[in-house]
Amino acid sequence: MQENEKPSRPTLEQLGEFGLIKHLTQGFQLSHKSTLKAIGDDAAIIDPESHEIVVTTDLLVEGVHFDLSYMPLKHLGYKAVIVNLSDVYAMNVQATQITMSIAVSNRFGLDALEAFYDGVKAACDLYKVDLVGGDTTSSTKGMLISVTAIGMSKASKIVKRSGAKPNDLLVVSGDIGGAYLGLQVLEREKEVFKVNPNNQPDLEPYTYIVERQLKPEARKDIIELLEQLEVQPTAMIDISDGLSSEILHLCEQSEVGCNLFEDKIPLDPTVINAAEEFKMDSTLIALSGGEDYELLFTIDQSDYPKIKANPNLTVIGHMTEAREGAHLVTRADTKIPLQAQGWNSFGGKN
Amino acid sequence: MQENEKPSRPTLEQLGEFGLIKHLTQGFQLSHKSTLKAIGDDAAIIDPESHEIVVTTDLLVEGVHFDLSYMPLKHLGYKAVIVNLSDVYAMNVQATQITMSIAVSNRFGLDALEAFYDGVKAACDLYKVDLVGGDTTSSTKGMLISVTAIGMSKASKIVKRSGAKPNDLLVVSGDIGGAYLGLQVLEREKEVFKVNPNNQPDLEPYTYIVERQLKPEARKDIIELLEQLEVQPTAMIDISDGLSSEILHLCEQSEVGCNLFEDKIPLDPTVINAAEEFKMDSTLIALSGGEDYELLFTIDQSDYPKIKANPNLTVIGHMTEAREGAHLVTRADTKIPLQAQGWNSFGGKN
Repeated sequence: MQENEKPSRPTLEQLGEFGLIKHLTQGFQLSHKSTLKAIGDDAAIIDPESHEIVVTTDLLVEGVHFDLSYMPLKHLGYKAVIVNLSDVYAMNVQATQITMSIAVSNRFGLDALEAFYDGVKAACDLYKVDLVGGDTTSSTKGMLISVTAIGMSKASKIVKRSGAKPNDLLVVSGDIGGAYLGLQVLEREKEVFKVNPNNQPDLEPYTYIVERQLKPEARKDIIELLEQLEVQPTAMIDISDGLSSEILHLCEQSEVGCNLFEDKIPLDPTVINAAEEFKMDSTLIALSGGEDYELLFTIDQSDYPKIKANPNLTVIGHMTEAREGAHLVTRADTKIPLQAQGWNSFGGKN
Repeated sequence: MQENEKPSRPTLEQLGEFGLIKHLTQGFQLSHKSTLKAIGDDAAIIDPESHEIVVTTDLLVEGVHFDLSYMPLKHLGYKAVIVNLSDVYAMNVQATQITMSIAVSNRFGLDALEAFYDGVKAACDLYKVDLVGGDTTSSTKGMLISVTAIGMSKASKIVKRSGAKPNDLLVVSGDIGGAYLGLQVLEREKEVFKVNPNNQPDLEPYTYIVERQLKPEARKDIIELLEQLEVQPTAMIDISDGLSSEILHLCEQSEVGCNLFEDKIPLDPTVINAAEEFKMDSTLIALSGGEDYELLFTIDQSDYPKIKANPNLTVIGHMTEAREGAHLVTRADTKIPLQAQGWNSFGGKN
């Protein structure tokens, strides 16, 4: 072997299933004392320390939930963790542990898996969650990712979708619609690339929305903020499918109605500009776009003074009696029934 | 519509993701008071009731882990639960909750998914575990299953792979090798069927081993038995990959060696007969076959009187100092080093 030659790397077959998991997870640190045993036994052992635990799981399929032609593997690993943490935060609970399982076809080598796990590690480090288990296997086609996230909290702090009351205020964190428009930009560039592979796309004007799509963040900070502000939401959900669909979930499970005010929906200027460019209605994008991973929650009116000055939170409506239904109140002051138009992996919008 | 026509069933697309989960899981009962909130929120809520929890997860891929040409979907749903429960029992812990995620291509209709969930429900009912979450999505090809299982126990009862000491006895539940030979029978019949689709296979002589493959059971009863007998294993693992590979896991993590006695390995007469028919060595099948989901554990010698009369348990060897290594002691009284030849989804035996 020449000196400047890279030492030959083991193949997945040579590493085997156990060797591979060991190799990919060796750099991971544990940060919770509740993690009594992580990877390496039949199961992980967790000490809930007299708390309730919450558990959520997601399955992501190449070609359905992600497209590797514009999604770098490191980003994908990061995002796969984030979307699950977001579900834990949506219970008003801090996430503590995850398991990560992937299946890959033989077109993926060790470098690809390392890049993916780099992203997983970046998310685990930033959000302080411990990787405690998982499975690495082969697939006949493409890549599949399954993540389970666990969090723990006192029962009295956990927020379900079902606690909203009439007159509660409807609040959203951050701004929405960006992730969907980021996807449109990426899809357009992919088409351009197919026609002219030498074309270098200038994504700079779209940095914010492309990043919302490729590297979303989960709102751990909002959970901490609400605790600081001493605000206990009455109901909460994360925005993975689009504002409209999430509001309807809250309404259905809390047995209330809702008035959502179009002019209150927080939109980033980049979203407004890109919507114009794509000749799309920015309100419709906010209502149906999805993948923003912001938190949507309801609070008692008496908590309004605690949140009103906060730049991270926007009151976008209020809950009503169930019989009044769920409506969008437009800028022209007309009421339009809200319809679920979120993402449906079984074909188009549902 | 004619009167005798079946009412038309909704398509997956019409049901949508949320409607589909609701439809498939509506018949499931909850049996644990620790399950505070099951399906229907961002996450399930579990009250560990001052216990430690264990968490394990598995990803099963069509064409890699199962073959639908001889695996009925109901059996597959059942088996997908069982293999995960087995990992919980291997910690000496009772399983309490599972999540079930599946991705299916458009060749699967509602009937197929209902059959699969019938199997999931049968396992949940028999093993008394609550289905608390999951995900149902589409795939571009084939079927994928991801299960996470949770159990809870006092910390002092949990058994890891790492507690075996020299001179501990090595014990296995039930008998082994059947699942692997069952698979050989099914593979053979599949080849016969390809040549002559009218041939009706007579599987009757193979009932036991085919059932071991298609409808394995997890040894919840052994956990209960050990508690009754007041035996606390020092280390434990379930046999999913083959006896040899599992013994080596115990040795490595407990830092001990092992002598396994060939003549003690419990084999069902059907296994011995089928091995002869397939011209395979029955010991090799037991060592490398896998998928039996029996429990393999070590106990202190002082516990031997408690287990010795029990027909469910067989002492097959004893642990030694690490430097002595792990060996099979053959019927001819020669010592052969044990090699891991368990299942490796990345290609052949590892």
